[in-house]
Amino acid sequence: MTQYSAGTVRQQILAVLSAWGMTPERAEITAEVMVDTDLAGIDSHGISMLPMYQRLINAGKLDTRAEAVIEREGPSTAVVDGGHNLGHSAMVTAMRLAVSKARETGVGVVTVRRSHHFGAAGYYARIAAESGQIGLVTSTTPTKTVVPTRGSRPVLGTNPLAFAAPSANEAEPFLLDMSTSTVAMNKVKVYDYLEKPLPAGWVLDGAGQPVTDSHAGYSQLRDQKEGGLSPLGGTEQLSSHKGYGLALMVQILAGALAGATFAPLREPSDPNDIGHFCLVIDPAFFGDAEQFAASVSQIVDLLRAEPPAAPDRPVLVPGDIERTVRTERLAAGIPLSGGLVSHIRDICDQNEAPFHL
Amino acid sequence: MTQYSAGTVRQQILAVLSAWGMTPERAEITAEVMVDTDLAGIDSHGISMLPMYQRLINAGKLDTRAEAVIEREGPSTAVVDGGHNLGHSAMVTAMRLAVSKARETGVGVVTVRRSHHFGAAGYYARIAAESGQIGLVTSTTPTKTVVPTRGSRPVLGTNPLAFAAPSANEAEPFLLDMSTSTVAMNKVKVYDYLEKPLPAGWVLDGAGQPVTDSHAGYSQLRDQKEGGLSPLGGTEQLSSHKGYGLALMVQILAGALAGATFAPLREPSDPNDIGHFCLVIDPAFFGDAEQFAASVSQIVDLLRAEPPAAPDRPVLVPGDIERTVRTERLAAGIPLSGGLVSHIRDICDQNEAPFHL
Repeated sequence: MTQYSAGTVRQQILAVLSAWGMTPERAEITAEVMVDTDLAGIDSHGISMLPMYQRLINAGKLDTRAEAVIEREGPSTAVVDGGHNLGHSAMVTAMRLAVSKARETGVGVVTVRRSHHFGAAGYYARIAAESGQIGLVTSTTPTKTVVPTRGSRPVLGTNPLAFAAPSANEAEPFLLDMSTSTVAMNKVKVYDYLEKPLPAGWVLDGAGQPVTDSHAGYSQLRDQKEGGLSPLGGTEQLSSHKGYGLALMVQILAGALAGATFAPLREPSDPNDIGHFCLVIDPAFFGDAEQFAASVSQIVDLLRAEPPAAPDRPVLVPGDIERTVRTERLAAGIPLSGGLVSHIRDICDQNEAPFHL
Repeated sequence: MTQYSAGTVRQQILAVLSAWGMTPERAEITAEVMVDTDLAGIDSHGISMLPMYQRLINAGKLDTRAEAVIEREGPSTAVVDGGHNLGHSAMVTAMRLAVSKARETGVGVVTVRRSHHFGAAGYYARIAAESGQIGLVTSTTPTKTVVPTRGSRPVLGTNPLAFAAPSANEAEPFLLDMSTSTVAMNKVKVYDYLEKPLPAGWVLDGAGQPVTDSHAGYSQLRDQKEGGLSPLGGTEQLSSHKGYGLALMVQILAGALAGATFAPLREPSDPNDIGHFCLVIDPAFFGDAEQFAASVSQIVDLLRAEPPAAPDRPVLVPGDIERTVRTERLAAGIPLSGGLVSHIRDICDQNEAPFHL
């Protein structure tokens, strides 16, 4: 692992996006979202996605030149057509629109269809919190990795959900960013790499039983034939039907409502057609906005001061870990593996983009 | 257990509510919500709540005569003051308001403050689905039963979340109704009664370790001093931080936004001051409403047809179990225990209400 400054990582991403033909404004926004994701420690969703995006371009599935278009608008609602481009800048457009609608009417709901991977959902929810508003973001996912409760094979995605709210401390919004599965596929990959046994409940086999051999578990996830990741809850006994239900809620909001497809109904030749959903609520329409932020602070401050079960492991609040990692990485840089750097060099060569790492 | 028709149970609830001085319109609505909850099999939240409501009245905490008042209103938002009455009819007012606002602007968000127990959250989300709209409902809870991830004692409630959406089959809306804990306290009570060991992950002790002795687990929940119910996920290893984060999301929406208090910050002498949150979205503002309902049906139909892990346990969709139980109970009646019936007879005697069971 070598560490690179956020500025260098941003410059590298921007160089590649520009070489792919993305318009300057959209490339700037996309690079900003991606580097922020790396700063927050969500390594699987930042610069490491460039090789996957290149594969999508090669397959003719990703149109990096497309603009996001607002195709329908009401006083509190809008629909954005992502044009099969990457989801990042379409979602920034969508969230900014939802924020301005919430400012006018108290609530804004904006959906995005014909989109692609957008990185980490939390980035967009935080846009609302930074404007003093509440943000809820969900997205469909293109791959089938999660097994419904009582099912035998993967039909759902990790369908993420992010929720943010301002606190009295502007630099510390409440920020929940989670998949609706117990863990993401990447976590199983890391356990396989480290040859560590999987906790019972992360991965299930075709008979609904926990798989604890990490090599077998990861192979099974890649095959996508039988078993897969568990919905949040892990097993039926531990109420995985709730995580499964939340995954369907996400599918209904970001898929059915947004007019995007459901992965199991898509043919391999179809576009990815990922959908996103944004909800923004302005607390000023419900009472005093400062009182709202103070109440959020009261809640999180009380939790952080709770006596922990183990003295050296304090009770945290969603957003704390990402904030700590961001501070560290702003100082020490973003760690990138030699393998990833070499992949990116190839992408630069292929697209005649400058290589900065 | 003796079985009583839904009509008899409704009549009995109505008689008690009327004797408590509730206005006829609010009493009718409240009885309707409560009997519907019993019909859906959510026995802990229907007629069995009457003894608890009587205790709240005796303690001077519940004002059954109060009207719910809309105290603030915008094009897409409103705030309802529940007047410290039961939450059921205030929430029906709130949801109907959210539905009509969504019909006008595409979205309606209505909060309720100074409220009380409202039964099952799913009832209200279903009001939206029955109008062809999407509904999301959350509520705070007065008791501290859930331990935050890494914590040693209960500070959160079971903070429920319900989500409903219409499908192409009007009689079968999608309906998720869940607490954000792994299980509700009542489930632990039943295991204690049956002397069955608890699954590891339902209840945690003060050191964050699973409690499997159901008697010890249930005693601990009643003491509310150390340990408690786990957030959805169960243990930290199985991502209980996600269930914990969802519980906080609910607390922020139904508590901080609604202007209701956070249970750990409330003095025993304070009013319960429970808060509720309703969001309604009209799919017609995002595309063709019939196409939306058809997409929801495509999703749930595909899941119900999935090959199950065990042949005799088909894959279900949120709402399926409640619908089956409702059909059974409409035919065979609602089972009530002798102990509960005797409690209700006492309440009738005490309030000079007719006894119908």
